[in-house]
Amino acid sequence: MKLATIRRGGSAVAAVVDEQAGRVFPLESDMISLIRSGERPALAGEGVALSSVELLAPIPRPPRNIFCVGKNYHAHAQEFTRSGFDSSARDASEAIPTAPIVFSKVPECVIASGEPIRYPTGVSDKLDYEAELAVVIGKGGRGIDRADAYDHVFGYMIVNDVTARDLQAHHKQWLIGKSLDTFCPMGPWLVTADDVSPETLGVRCWVNGELRQDANTADLIFDIPTLIEAISAGITLQPGDVIATGTPAGVGIGFDPPRYLARGDQVTIEIDGLGRLSNAIQ
Amino acid sequence: MKLATIRRGGSAVAAVVDEQAGRVFPLESDMISLIRSGERPALAGEGVALSSVELLAPIPRPPRNIFCVGKNYHAHAQEFTRSGFDSSARDASEAIPTAPIVFSKVPECVIASGEPIRYPTGVSDKLDYEAELAVVIGKGGRGIDRADAYDHVFGYMIVNDVTARDLQAHHKQWLIGKSLDTFCPMGPWLVTADDVSPETLGVRCWVNGELRQDANTADLIFDIPTLIEAISAGITLQPGDVIATGTPAGVGIGFDPPRYLARGDQVTIEIDGLGRLSNAIQ
Repeated sequence: MKLATIRRGGSAVAAVVDEQAGRVFPLESDMISLIRSGERPALAGEGVALSSVELLAPIPRPPRNIFCVGKNYHAHAQEFTRSGFDSSARDASEAIPTAPIVFSKVPECVIASGEPIRYPTGVSDKLDYEAELAVVIGKGGRGIDRADAYDHVFGYMIVNDVTARDLQAHHKQWLIGKSLDTFCPMGPWLVTADDVSPETLGVRCWVNGELRQDANTADLIFDIPTLIEAISAGITLQPGDVIATGTPAGVGIGFDPPRYLARGDQVTIEIDGLGRLSNAIQ
Repeated sequence: MKLATIRRGGSAVAAVVDEQAGRVFPLESDMISLIRSGERPALAGEGVALSSVELLAPIPRPPRNIFCVGKNYHAHAQEFTRSGFDSSARDASEAIPTAPIVFSKVPECVIASGEPIRYPTGVSDKLDYEAELAVVIGKGGRGIDRADAYDHVFGYMIVNDVTARDLQAHHKQWLIGKSLDTFCPMGPWLVTADDVSPETLGVRCWVNGELRQDANTADLIFDIPTLIEAISAGITLQPGDVIATGTPAGVGIGFDPPRYLARGDQVTIEIDGLGRLSNAIQ
């Protein structure tokens, strides 16, 4: 089931999307309340035309910072360490992490598909894209065993973990370089766990129509159960938590010379079954 | 003015504390609403005895992750890099940061003075304390100039940036090692900016009555205006944001051999004018 957040009257409500029929069925609650309720949404009425509604980010304002995983695909871990921007590794021998590298993005940097990524003039001139599969937690918990991890997943969606490479390196810890305003495009919707096979999803990213990232979640270094187990070992996961699982090779600093994003660029990400997330740099 | 959060009926409300008279004056709103309102609280009634109320953390659940600054005192930066747990520096030549190192703690790990820090059995056995001055943002903003930074400060309080050293090193980025449940003791109250001279505050920390940290905020590498300028350069600061400014020398891993916290230990922190924050390890 595809679930979107749409603007309805003055507020943001969750809605079931029937993409084939081109219709959406608004629900009574917002997405976080829906996730917390643990109930499966019931369709009611004839819905409204998909083309007539404004899609917001599926979780427009996550309840706390988004958990993000760094260097979680082999080829990307190597390109990143080679780039010279990786404060987490001394040299190539440390490129592949031995445990999940987990940092965060502030919740207010989330934007919807179609909204512009603001170029941070005067703050950074080394802007980069990162196509990622994001996991949305349903049932919370602490000390979740990897064998039970999927029981805690509500659904999946696409995020673009936009990054200011200069700030990421300069501040050593990545929070600032990852959290600039508008730096977390998310959407277009989320797909509930029962409709997704998260371990074999194609992940693709284009910049101005040129394919830059083309990978599969089968190549994750730390898979989803491992990430949930590692984070929840001492931190109680909450319904609505978002875990962005890391980006594959092909980001801008993977090229020599680097290919940073510029004003007017269009970044489009597609993940099998999860739709397309597309945002321009403004 | 001292502002606490107290339990009143079933909810948590802000209250003005008159420590000398031993009385508290409950307000209508919670602390975050009070900060967002931008209004100075008006005292009303005769209040209630300070000894009769339960003090919660001043901001029991910050609206998003707490911003934290690493290695922000010279002597601590050196002791930390020397300890071998510092994933942000290759060697002693990189001990002193050239820009603020900013990471976060999840908001749900906040606890009040007097509440127990839960020993994370099976998850970490290298628990450490970090006495810190925390800044609470009043008026939000982006691109705040250091000259205007203090206009954006609502007040100050004590936090203990409890850390699992093994996880901090293992995961490279510090979020997990800093965010275990109960890892952010905060309080006992916050003091509004008009009553604090934040640039010359004595900071002390005792473990079981033994003085371990004894420093002054005058020795911060990056002062409060610099931190606010750096974080807000591209991230819009919000009312109620908390910035923990870093800890001075004397933490457990500063000793050889390290002196980790054990069950039953009592950690007490005092900052001039801000009261005492005391928590046992359970």
